[in-house]
Amino acid sequence: MAKYPAHLLTLLAFLKKFPGVGTKTAERFAFQLLGWPESELKKFSLLLSELKQKITYCEECGCFAEGQGCFYCSNGQRDKKTLCIIASPKDVFPIEDMKSYIGLYHVLDGLLSPLDGKNPENLRVGELKHRIESLQIQEVIIALDSTLEGDTTALYLKEELKKWGINATRLAFGLPMGSSLDFVDGGTLLRAFAGRQTF
Amino acid sequence: MAKYPAHLLTLLAFLKKFPGVGTKTAERFAFQLLGWPESELKKFSLLLSELKQKITYCEECGCFAEGQGCFYCSNGQRDKKTLCIIASPKDVFPIEDMKSYIGLYHVLDGLLSPLDGKNPENLRVGELKHRIESLQIQEVIIALDSTLEGDTTALYLKEELKKWGINATRLAFGLPMGSSLDFVDGGTLLRAFAGRQTF
Repeated sequence: MAKYPAHLLTLLAFLKKFPGVGTKTAERFAFQLLGWPESELKKFSLLLSELKQKITYCEECGCFAEGQGCFYCSNGQRDKKTLCIIASPKDVFPIEDMKSYIGLYHVLDGLLSPLDGKNPENLRVGELKHRIESLQIQEVIIALDSTLEGDTTALYLKEELKKWGINATRLAFGLPMGSSLDFVDGGTLLRAFAGRQTF
Repeated sequence: MAKYPAHLLTLLAFLKKFPGVGTKTAERFAFQLLGWPESELKKFSLLLSELKQKITYCEECGCFAEGQGCFYCSNGQRDKKTLCIIASPKDVFPIEDMKSYIGLYHVLDGLLSPLDGKNPENLRVGELKHRIESLQIQEVIIALDSTLEGDTTALYLKEELKKWGINATRLAFGLPMGSSLDFVDGGTLLRAFAGRQTF
């Protein structure tokens, strides 16, 4: 039986860790990598080995940081009384793309999921409380996924925030723009009905 | 404007080199990589940096080799009088998966494509002639893509082989198994008609 060299098998195993990459795609990636010039491979390799050191996070809000301090926390143009709670640093980008939100962020570092070992003490909830108090935050917006974990975490945060005397809002659920009723799932439709508004 | 840290942008640029990977997929890959444990990243990085050294090729046939010599050339079970010409080492695997071909291979290292700088002297044609003579090959099968480059290369090889007194066959073109006439393109149908056989 023909077989891949051991080194290639290891490479395939690594490539298959990427989301949505199966054996066939991993093979295409691997054979492409074999065709890269040595110098490119070295650069890519170096980049990966330094990744954790080079990509740093703001100690305050938990967003990606780079050298000269946090783009949000140390930005005079931002509204320092509004806080948007997100699950991970990457969630900043779609929100910033709206070009409408100008408040601060707070990265929770995950969502509650006790089965995966994610309990309240694993999230940045203590830091949240501290920041709300020290910054005298007036508005809190919860921007978490509309999944089971997102819902659980949002409910938990709502209770915590209530204890600290803060009212929070959560992003609206409903029909996505440009969608047709035919293609919308039951859960979304239910939420859209429950959240119906006068116009 | 929110922007990715420079290191992340470089990572995205590398990931977008993979076939079929656009910005969105590269972002998903990058954020997944950021979540890998440090040890995994280091292993992946090391693997990539060693790739060119660890993945070696048989000097005879050009297939992937590993330590103890070529799986095909130094295998007593193979038919040493039949040679299958392939464009790249990876083409071995689908052919071996048939479990029907037991001859040797010869990797050309590409297809003729003058615009991309691939001329006959860049292919392993000299080695091909040498092997056909020294191994006294009796049957040559050309297993190249059914693309413009594949056709050009096959025609070129046919002429060369004729000079050396060798007749070669090329893989048949026709309807793929399980296909319906409705969905087959015109070129394939034309080839299938031209190659029709009594049965």
